[in-house]
Formats: sequence, C-alpha cells, structure tokens
Amino acid sequence: MIAVEEARGRILGALAPTPAETVALPEAWGRVLAQPVIARVTQPPADVSAMDGYAVRAGDAVAGAALRVVGAAPAGHPFEGSVGPGEAVRIFTGAIVPPGADGILLQEDAAVAAGGIIRVGETVRPGRWIRRQGLDFAAGEAVLPAGRRLTARDIGLAAASNHAWLAVHRAPRIGILATGDEIALPGDPIPPGGIVSSNAHALAALVRSAGGVPIVLPIAPDDKGAIAAIATAARGCDLLVTTGGASVGDHDLVQSALGPEGFALDFWQIAMRPGKPLIWGRLGPTPLLGLPGNPVSALVCGVIFLIPALQRLCGQAAEAPRTVNAVAGAALAANDRRFDHLRAVLSQDAAGRLVATPFPAQDSSMLKTLARADGLILRTPLAPPLPEGADVEVIPLADLGI
Amino acid sequence: MIAVEEARGRILGALAPTPAETVALPEAWGRVLAQPVIARVTQPPADVSAMDGYAVRAGDAVAGAALRVVGAAPAGHPFEGSVGPGEAVRIFTGAIVPPGADGILLQEDAAVAAGGIIRVGETVRPGRWIRRQGLDFAAGEAVLPAGRRLTARDIGLAAASNHAWLAVHRAPRIGILATGDEIALPGDPIPPGGIVSSNAHALAALVRSAGGVPIVLPIAPDDKGAIAAIATAARGCDLLVTTGGASVGDHDLVQSALGPEGFALDFWQIAMRPGKPLIWGRLGPTPLLGLPGNPVSALVCGVIFLIPALQRLCGQAAEAPRTVNAVAGAALAANDRRFDHLRAVLSQDAAGRLVATPFPAQDSSMLKTLARADGLILRTPLAPPLPEGADVEVIPLADLGI
Repeated sequence: MIAVEEARGRILGALAPTPAETVALPEAWGRVLAQPVIARVTQPPADVSAMDGYAVRAGDAVAGAALRVVGAAPAGHPFEGSVGPGEAVRIFTGAIVPPGADGILLQEDAAVAAGGIIRVGETVRPGRWIRRQGLDFAAGEAVLPAGRRLTARDIGLAAASNHAWLAVHRAPRIGILATGDEIALPGDPIPPGGIVSSNAHALAALVRSAGGVPIVLPIAPDDKGAIAAIATAARGCDLLVTTGGASVGDHDLVQSALGPEGFALDFWQIAMRPGKPLIWGRLGPTPLLGLPGNPVSALVCGVIFLIPALQRLCGQAAEAPRTVNAVAGAALAANDRRFDHLRAVLSQDAAGRLVATPFPAQDSSMLKTLARADGLILRTPLAPPLPEGADVEVIPLADLGI
Repeated sequence: MIAVEEARGRILGALAPTPAETVALPEAWGRVLAQPVIARVTQPPADVSAMDGYAVRAGDAVAGAALRVVGAAPAGHPFEGSVGPGEAVRIFTGAIVPPGADGILLQEDAAVAAGGIIRVGETVRPGRWIRRQGLDFAAGEAVLPAGRRLTARDIGLAAASNHAWLAVHRAPRIGILATGDEIALPGDPIPPGGIVSSNAHALAALVRSAGGVPIVLPIAPDDKGAIAAIATAARGCDLLVTTGGASVGDHDLVQSALGPEGFALDFWQIAMRPGKPLIWGRLGPTPLLGLPGNPVSALVCGVIFLIPALQRLCGQAAEAPRTVNAVAGAALAANDRRFDHLRAVLSQDAAGRLVATPFPAQDSSMLKTLARADGLILRTPLAPPLPEGADVEVIPLADLGI
C-alpha cells in the first residue's frame, strides 16, 4: 500500500496537458486558458467621465460661477472641440473628457440658467470624477494568465480587452468503464442479487464538472474477454477510468484481463479509506485509473485523484483538493494507518468558525450520506482521537462542483 | 431609490418556476428537480457482505474451529443453498449473505486447509461485516427532494435508486440586450471614443452557470426604434435582461423606447453601489430586468438580483446570495446610504478565520479587480467605519460559479 500523497504525485507526474484549440469567446466559459490573454486595447481608452454632468476647467468652476455650455459629449460621441476659459461641455458617464477640461461638475451641482449658461453649485476639484486612461488595464498587459479556468467575470474581461477568440486546452476525453456481473443500468433488468450501477454516470458528471468530456462505455461483465475488448475500444481517450474489479477477491479481473492488452501497472492499493483498491498504470498509450467498485469509494477517490488528474489534463495547476480549517462538531476516534475521509455537514458557529460534523455512520456503501455531505474531514494515518471542538482539515465538496 | 432587499423581493415575487421536462439521467446534472426522486429499489437489496471472506454461522466460527466450504457467492451470483452447522460459503464484497449465515469470517482470518476445509483464525461476531438490507435507502423513500440542483453525487444516487429519467425544470431562456452607441463586439470596429462590449457575454456566462440558456441579442444603438425592435424580438424569453440605458442621463432611452411596446415599470433606482440604476418591470408577458451599463455594476447586480431570479425560474429556493462571516483585512470607511459591495480577496489567517481584504481602489469601472476578487464585502446603508479585524459579512463568488 502506498500513501495518498505519493499516489497523487505519481498520477500527476504521468499526465500532460492537452494541446490548445481555438474557441469562440462564449464557448470559453469554464475552459482553461492555454495562453495568457493580452489586452489589445487600453481601458478606459482615454480619460473619461465617471458621472453625468459637465466637463469644466476646475479653476473656473468655483461655487457661484457661471459657465457657458459649448457642446455635448455623450458616450461614444466625443466632443470635437476643447473647453476654453469659462466654458463647459455637457458630458455623460463613460464619455471622453474633452481637451482643456480637468474636472467634472456633477449634474446635481449645476443649475441650468437661460441662454446656455449653467451656474456652479459646488466648487469642482481638479481630476475629480475623471477615470484616467488605463485605470482598468493597458494595451499589452496580461489581464488573464495561462492555466486559468475562466469564470463569467473573466469572459467579461477577455471581451473588454478585445478578444473574440481564445486559445484553451482541448477538453480531455475520459473513458469510463464500469465492470461487474452484478450491476445493471437504471431501468434495465437487474440480475439476481444485483444492484443498479451508479458509478459510471456519477463519474461522468464529475468529469463534466471538472472540464472533461466523459465517454461512458457499456458495462463490462466479469469476463476477461469482455473487459479487454471494451478497454480496447477506449483507445483515443486521454484517460481511461475503470470502476470495480480492483480488489483482491477471486473475481477481480481488470488487472489480469488487461495484461495481455499491454497494460503496464504502476501501482495498486493505497493507504486510504474509503478506497483502498486503486489501480494506476498505462494501457498502451492511454493512462488508466482503476477506481474501487463501491460508489462512495469511487467518488471519494474521484475527488482525491481524478479531479487533480483532470486539472492536469486541462492545463490547470493540479494539486491536492483545497482544504479549509474547521472545528470538529463531534469527537473523532483514533485513526488506523489508512488516510480516512469522513463525510460531514458544514455549518458556522456563533463565533463565525466553520464546524464540520461527521455523519454517525460512515459505511462506504452509503451513497446517500455522500450526497448529503458538504465536505470530507481529513484524518491522516494514525491520527490520535480528537475531542469535539478540535481543529480539523476539511475538503469542501461544493467548491469542486460535484 | 428602494432598498436592495425590497427590490429582490419584488423581483422574486413576480417570477414563477418554469414547467417540468423529462431528461435522461446524464443530462440532469446541474438541473433542478421538478419532482422528488423516490427510490424504486432498496439498497442494499438484501443483507450483503461488506468484505471478501466466508459467510458463516457465528456460533460455529470460533477461533480454531474447522468449517467445510459448501459453495461460493460472488457479487451478482447468490449462493442458492443455505449455510448449515459447521459450514461456510466463500463470499465476496457486495454478495448476498446466504440463509443460515449470520457473520462474515474475513479472508485474512481464514486458513485454507485440504479437502475444502478452512480453519477459523479469529472468532466471528454475529452481524459483523454484514451490511443490512436498506442500509443506504429503502424503496419508496424520497432520496432527493424537488427543488434540488443535482450534483454528480446526486446523479449517482438517482441512478442507484433506479431512475433513468428525471423530471427537471426547463432551463429558463434569458434574452440579453446590451445597449449603447459606444460599444462594439470584440474584434469589430470600435467607434470613436467607444469601448468593447463585455456585459452581454459575461452575463451570458453567468446565466449558464446559474442554469439558464442565454440568448445574446445584437447590440442596440441608442435609438428608440432599434431598442424597441430588438426587445420585441426577445418575446418568448422567460426573462429579458438589458444593460445600459437605465441611468438618468439624457441618453438613457431604454425606458422611453420600451414604453410604446407595452412596458410596465415596477421600480427603478436602488440604494446600492455599484449599481444604482436598475429597472424592473414587464414587457407584455416578459419580465424585464434592466442592469446598469457599467460592467462591474452589471455583474454585481447580476449576483444580487439575476442569480436569485434564475434560481426562482429554475425551481430552486431563491434567496439572497449565501454569505459567510469573515474579519476585515483592512480598515473600512463609513458607508453612505447606498448598500455597498466591496471587491475583496479571501484568505485564512493562522487562527483559521476567514479574512476579507478589499482592493484599495473600488471604482466601478475596474473589471479586472472584479475578475480577481474572491468575494464581495457587504456594507449596509450608513454602516459605521470599521477597524481592521472587525467582523464583516461576505458573498463568496466562487460559490456562485461565476
């Protein structure tokens, strides 16, 4: 058995980001930049007004003074002249401040008099209510770095910096192969003593949430030929994920079935719970991650290993899932030598501290408690017992979009 | 000007969830359930083994005893007989425990002897390593409630409870109309004094992240006819969102342009920053939300009003964005009568407390700082100045997927 950190390190070390493709801006949301976005324009493009009012020479615009309005500058329609002594130009938010003006008289501080004259209600400070050219960003500036997964706000920033196309990493194709005589797809006839398969479609959703394209393969029965044939069909994937068939029982066929197909094992069995049986290797050119058949184990291993693997393939910085500090909402027993991940509900106490309360039952067959959990409390190998209120480290599941 | 809470209440009060549609399980990820998911099977379907080993009568399986192996029960292949006195059945994880047996002898605690005999290494406790029928859920149980936005784990739970199809709310169609003579799409010619339009595509990504289908309409110039014609083209949307044209300036045409089209205003102007100009009303049958033209204001109003509106349309419980408690990473000035939302970076201090540090410059034209922000610090109207380290309430932006 190898440790969780070492296993993740070996998985990530064997993977490389997919190459870049060009996508239209609206398709880039949630994708990972393959190149930085370099601003092609300066924003604002010139000094502009931050308010509706009048562009003025601050030296003239003292309280009580009268100014002559010589023109108007709506946004997108710059005033073509300049503001001379005793003059003002009507201006609107976002419009370029005309030459000569160095301050903005707010609309509500200007009284409109007869004959195109306004009277200043409040003295204007030089530079006030002017947004300087380049206040947000300047042409040539890298506004978004390579490796960033693009948010809605980033899409806005890329648009504002005048990019209609972005270079992003191709979404990795992830083959998903569930194995087992005992499993059936939802709605299909269930074999005697069998159950409904949940792993493939839960993992497919996890893959989508992490930016990959899932390819769900037909369920493989516990038969060497079937497993080998289906695994072959997965060639061309950036990663093949199997579930089931990885434990030590007599009926664990994945390893033996794939051997003749050229499977090179790197490691199997890791010191964690839920999820001891885990296979990592390479099937010809395709990296293969073999997850446990147990649904909770499969998804927790998905969080610990598959999401970082997807991040690496997508071109993001790949690392252990982000954790936060919390206090234990219940006493925790001493841990054995396997790294444990306790399903927990998160809340905030009166002092504003995050509280992580584990479900009383943690059996790895209980998918409902995983669906209800807000996070996973980390229990390192041989961790001592902890009282309620002790500090714990938690992976928040909502962060991961799963 | 009306208050933020009142504005949100009036918006939500005017919206109703979209009707249900049936989608295949893999398409249901990220969608909102229109009906609860009722388990159609019991999981586990019978008492099953939690480990690889031997199904035994615990009374017989005392340390040192010899048991005769009378058969095998792989998962999906139940043993058809029963376990009699002095007998054992080879069993694998997930397989049904045969009648007669009431405990599991772990594989590593059994020594295989000649002639189909095993010797018990450790006394078996009754019930140990048996997962009881229904431990996870029982047929007829509501495993997922209506109104829930489905995670990857939920997809697994729906599959395990034998649903291939789910009833979800139809994704709401959101028309997005950016207005202004001064804006151009990325890559298109930029008018003199103009800027590149970022609102429509940032809001489209926000709509997608919140479960809607964005329909980006062509940019409308500041011309009554153009605005009215394009708004008409948006009929059939569940909600029309406009940006720009909502403020008090001479060139704010949306309200006047839409009047002849049957626009009924509910309110405009709210006491918040960024984002004072906001329109809410109804264009014939279509609710209309008019956001400010400023990109930061548009997106912050998107967080405060549009995401809750999308939640309501999608069938989720709609409410104010979730906030967390944090401590201020810098002193905060007193606030005026507008509810303020300070862009901030989030971190954790040594004591595990969340720290929210506002960017020094908060000008509402600075989109880059919004893209860099992890959260928005809430400053209620007339809030007093606060020293560094004071308690503040924060909307974490990552939670919102934007």
